[in-house]
Amino acid sequence: MTNYTDMWEKLNLDLKAHDSLMQVLGKFYGDIYLSQQGRLKGAEYLDFVLSEVHGLRVQELQDAKAQGRKIVGTFCVFVPEELTLAADAVQVGLCSGADAGTELAETLVPRNTCALIKSFMGFKLARLCPYIESCDLLVGETTCDGKKKAYEQLAEMAPIHIMEVPQKKDDHDRVLWKTEVLRYKQVIEKLTGKTITADKLKTAIKTVNAKRRALQRLNRLRAAEPAPISGRDVLLVNQISFYDDPVRFTAKINELCDEIEARIKQGQGVAPKGTPRLMLSGCPMAVPNWKLPYIIESSGAVIVSEESCIGSRNTRDLVDESTDTLEGMLDAIADRYLRIDCATFTPNTERLDNIVQLAKESKADGVIHYGLLFCQPYAHEFFKVDKALKDAGIPMLSIETDYSMEDVGQLKTRVEAFVEMLK
Amino acid sequence: MTNYTDMWEKLNLDLKAHDSLMQVLGKFYGDIYLSQQGRLKGAEYLDFVLSEVHGLRVQELQDAKAQGRKIVGTFCVFVPEELTLAADAVQVGLCSGADAGTELAETLVPRNTCALIKSFMGFKLARLCPYIESCDLLVGETTCDGKKKAYEQLAEMAPIHIMEVPQKKDDHDRVLWKTEVLRYKQVIEKLTGKTITADKLKTAIKTVNAKRRALQRLNRLRAAEPAPISGRDVLLVNQISFYDDPVRFTAKINELCDEIEARIKQGQGVAPKGTPRLMLSGCPMAVPNWKLPYIIESSGAVIVSEESCIGSRNTRDLVDESTDTLEGMLDAIADRYLRIDCATFTPNTERLDNIVQLAKESKADGVIHYGLLFCQPYAHEFFKVDKALKDAGIPMLSIETDYSMEDVGQLKTRVEAFVEMLK
Repeated sequence: MTNYTDMWEKLNLDLKAHDSLMQVLGKFYGDIYLSQQGRLKGAEYLDFVLSEVHGLRVQELQDAKAQGRKIVGTFCVFVPEELTLAADAVQVGLCSGADAGTELAETLVPRNTCALIKSFMGFKLARLCPYIESCDLLVGETTCDGKKKAYEQLAEMAPIHIMEVPQKKDDHDRVLWKTEVLRYKQVIEKLTGKTITADKLKTAIKTVNAKRRALQRLNRLRAAEPAPISGRDVLLVNQISFYDDPVRFTAKINELCDEIEARIKQGQGVAPKGTPRLMLSGCPMAVPNWKLPYIIESSGAVIVSEESCIGSRNTRDLVDESTDTLEGMLDAIADRYLRIDCATFTPNTERLDNIVQLAKESKADGVIHYGLLFCQPYAHEFFKVDKALKDAGIPMLSIETDYSMEDVGQLKTRVEAFVEMLK
Repeated sequence: MTNYTDMWEKLNLDLKAHDSLMQVLGKFYGDIYLSQQGRLKGAEYLDFVLSEVHGLRVQELQDAKAQGRKIVGTFCVFVPEELTLAADAVQVGLCSGADAGTELAETLVPRNTCALIKSFMGFKLARLCPYIESCDLLVGETTCDGKKKAYEQLAEMAPIHIMEVPQKKDDHDRVLWKTEVLRYKQVIEKLTGKTITADKLKTAIKTVNAKRRALQRLNRLRAAEPAPISGRDVLLVNQISFYDDPVRFTAKINELCDEIEARIKQGQGVAPKGTPRLMLSGCPMAVPNWKLPYIIESSGAVIVSEESCIGSRNTRDLVDESTDTLEGMLDAIADRYLRIDCATFTPNTERLDNIVQLAKESKADGVIHYGLLFCQPYAHEFFKVDKALKDAGIPMLSIETDYSMEDVGQLKTRVEAFVEMLK
């Protein structure tokens, strides 16, 4: 294994704390991922990427920087990767899935803040995330109150641009959002010193759409009975989609899908036919937040879909490719991102339709609604999701938790009871 | 005392529960307000209005309705009362300051929601608020996540229009907000069947500005040493400003101010010279949320300013009166409301300046930052307020609480220690 200590030192990480984190992560990954039976050969890619999560990929970012490319870090699915790529920059999602630097984070954000926000603040403050330290620019967005206000604190520590996401989806919201898309274009052009041309943007749109298509294909294949891939592995695929090179990632996921197709033809799966199939719905699960998926899949169920930002919310919609003008493509980008059914919009009824549709398409026997403690938008929508699923005759269990391991036993008991009921 | 039972019955209140609430409120008011020493004669107006809080004023609303006027209920300082009045409608702030129907509220909004939101949901669900039951239209706004999403539930129970407040204050946010102001104008014109003319709007702007000027005058007078009026009484004035008739209210507050001026000339106050002077800053305190002010003023301090929506945030800025065209006045309204330094904006640095300025103007010895538990925007800004006040050399105590009485003892201990430190 390559030694990345020099690189981490140059990035000013807290080496000792970072070593401990990597050790915990490695053990956690081994327990949750490598212990799986009947895994696909293509999962080797996932294992490799994860084993190099703070290594090779971060080295690639340094190499890109050495070649004059810029690195843009994001926290949310609203930042158009198409524009970042068209300006020849690299876009990476930032560390936010583990308890790290929580005490430090709580000196800048309230205790009653969701674990995801505390995590990215903690990673920065405790100098544990090589991605954020590699970034030339962070791009935040006005989605929930928690993130919006936390970015104000982050702005004191790193250069950050904030995209304003409107709160409704009326015509004048579209106008505001289009302005924000254009503004981001200016910001990224200024950062990179490169002009986004129609040709470059067309290529970037195709690159990002290809990534989404590969993930859509994966999601379609999972609908097979028995389930050909574990939910844990697909979650990992979605997580990796945020930081690996998009072209390589797409190729690897399509290879994985080829293998899954062969497996389906042979009637093989990761769990016996008749295993209760569950859909996850709600808050995003960032690397290495695998707690609940592991609990579910070690309780006799298999996860067949994720209605989440690190899941189908990020891959459902493509950017329209039918236009060739720069203006037309910018419009298509604005339209595509405004279709995201984030709980911070009001109203957000399309999410209810999408949930019921995805549950049916993925042949889910039940849904687990996942809320991060203190995430208000998804906690509020829980009541509506509950009703929509009841109306559709689909059972639901609501779980609210954070990144700690203290409630694992209690959650397992609840999940097991829910799975038992579905049998 | 007039018997309003018939009216309350017609409004479909839960009479039994409402009677209990009124009894508790009456006792609470007696303990907190009528027990005060050296009160102004003008406080009789406050006592009368409060004693008739669900009575005479609600009867006036019924009379207005009988004359064909419409009643608009609001939850926030972003709804332009100028437009409501110019359409000959009545605008009232709605009940949200007491634990009422909490269990019912928690069937529609998360447990981890601030007390103010749970309160207005609970008042509606438990049929305890004659104001909301008198409304022809509710007007909500996209400020915090909690309210934004709670209004979706409220929309199932009553007609509601949502104004989208932008999250930043750039040029294109102003465009969006202006559109929202125009849209509200359309909505209120449609509701009332009346056209808002330049003349009517001019009059309405003067009416609302006069109310703000009376409150500004009151705030200026309070800067006297010794403090000529208690913070409790001024909070009540601010609370009443949201639902009493604006012309009557303005006249009464100016009378109160005349009396205060006389008192100042005689060197009289409600507390001895040298009594520690405190400013409240943070979340709004709706009727009858008098818990913390009572604790403070029974701990040897006097409150001299409220940096809050039910306080100076709502009265600091006037609508520019220098224009006579309808379009110009609508612009002036849009501008005035976008100056509000609500914590849901990002960034919101002007609030820090306003806090320091108000603390100095009101000659506050210290500040108590008041957060409603689970109110994320103000909890986040606490960190910045803390720093701004430290930089200005003004001591601060942070209190986070809800509407329950369970923590009164603990809060009193903390407030007393803070006051002691200021002596």
